[in-house]
Amino acid sequence: MLSSRVVKLDKGDHTRAAILEQAIQMASVVGLDGLSIGGLAERMHLSKSGLFAHFGSKDALQLAILKSGFERFGELVVADAMRLPRGVATIRALFDGWLRWSHERLDGGCLFVTASVEFDDRPGPVREFLVDAYRRWFGMFSEAAGRAIGDGDFRTGLDCEQFAHDINGVMLGFNLADRLFNDPHAERRAHHALERLLEDAKP
Amino acid sequence: MLSSRVVKLDKGDHTRAAILEQAIQMASVVGLDGLSIGGLAERMHLSKSGLFAHFGSKDALQLAILKSGFERFGELVVADAMRLPRGVATIRALFDGWLRWSHERLDGGCLFVTASVEFDDRPGPVREFLVDAYRRWFGMFSEAAGRAIGDGDFRTGLDCEQFAHDINGVMLGFNLADRLFNDPHAERRAHHALERLLEDAKP
Repeated sequence: MLSSRVVKLDKGDHTRAAILEQAIQMASVVGLDGLSIGGLAERMHLSKSGLFAHFGSKDALQLAILKSGFERFGELVVADAMRLPRGVATIRALFDGWLRWSHERLDGGCLFVTASVEFDDRPGPVREFLVDAYRRWFGMFSEAAGRAIGDGDFRTGLDCEQFAHDINGVMLGFNLADRLFNDPHAERRAHHALERLLEDAKP
Repeated sequence: MLSSRVVKLDKGDHTRAAILEQAIQMASVVGLDGLSIGGLAERMHLSKSGLFAHFGSKDALQLAILKSGFERFGELVVADAMRLPRGVATIRALFDGWLRWSHERLDGGCLFVTASVEFDDRPGPVREFLVDAYRRWFGMFSEAAGRAIGDGDFRTGLDCEQFAHDINGVMLGFNLADRLFNDPHAERRAHHALERLLEDAKP
């Protein structure tokens, strides 16, 4: 579901990449902690020790899953959106890209939402990576909102960090409605909330 | 931190209630799955078998934690809020009560947010309980929004379910800012977002 890369990789890299792709899907469902090394090895037709040879430890695997996931997210969602000529178009593309990422690309919804709840109280490299990834994600929205001010689409003086904070709340609200309620209206509700935020930001 | 009850309980009930109070705090930090029976028993100065005697299984303990947590939440947050004379006052009281519950009463933030992410992909009684609890929670906001329409504070035709959905997104956004970023402005941002929702709902 996470489309394949075009970069040339040797066999070891291919195996590692395939393990991570499978691990990202499994972690989206059961969480990074819930992911069993045995279960992952079985799905990949590897021995547990063969799988460990690629990562070294469960901690290292968890971090590799997030790093690989964030890289794929960058390719699938962020890259094209950030190149759009107007700030509002970037905001819509990031938002829609995230919805597809969460709802279609991953078996168990956004990996980062799950991981952030798992690791928010646990200091260490996984938490640090998540904080940094989320800061960058918020930064994309606040930067795009800043561009929208420059475009004349948003009002001068808009609090761009509050805007990014609010849009993240809309996405988390979607995640709950989609994953917990299986609400068929989750996407419509999320778009409705997005449009209200965009409307409120106008000059 | 979750204040004590006034109902008369016998010794077995007291022990069970004390175990659950400790378990709610621990699960708010590490999640329902992360909660170790051994760790909980140790904190309560009980043997693992002594603890199991009160609940029977880890599944039963998880469900008991959520049921007890939701009951406490009802006493601490919901009961007084629902009695307020105007819908908007009820909405503010539910919202502020939840912020205190998540930020002050629990060591690791709202137990239900953590549990909903853990169990959203896992059918069974824990997930069913969470769906029902969240539906009731959403229902309180949509009912209060309906009363606010009757009070003349919200416009006729407001989509009360969308309103409840949106306010939940604001709370989840607070949870991430508070727990993952330890953002000192999290509460101010949440209130700002709430005021915008209330403003948008006006006639």
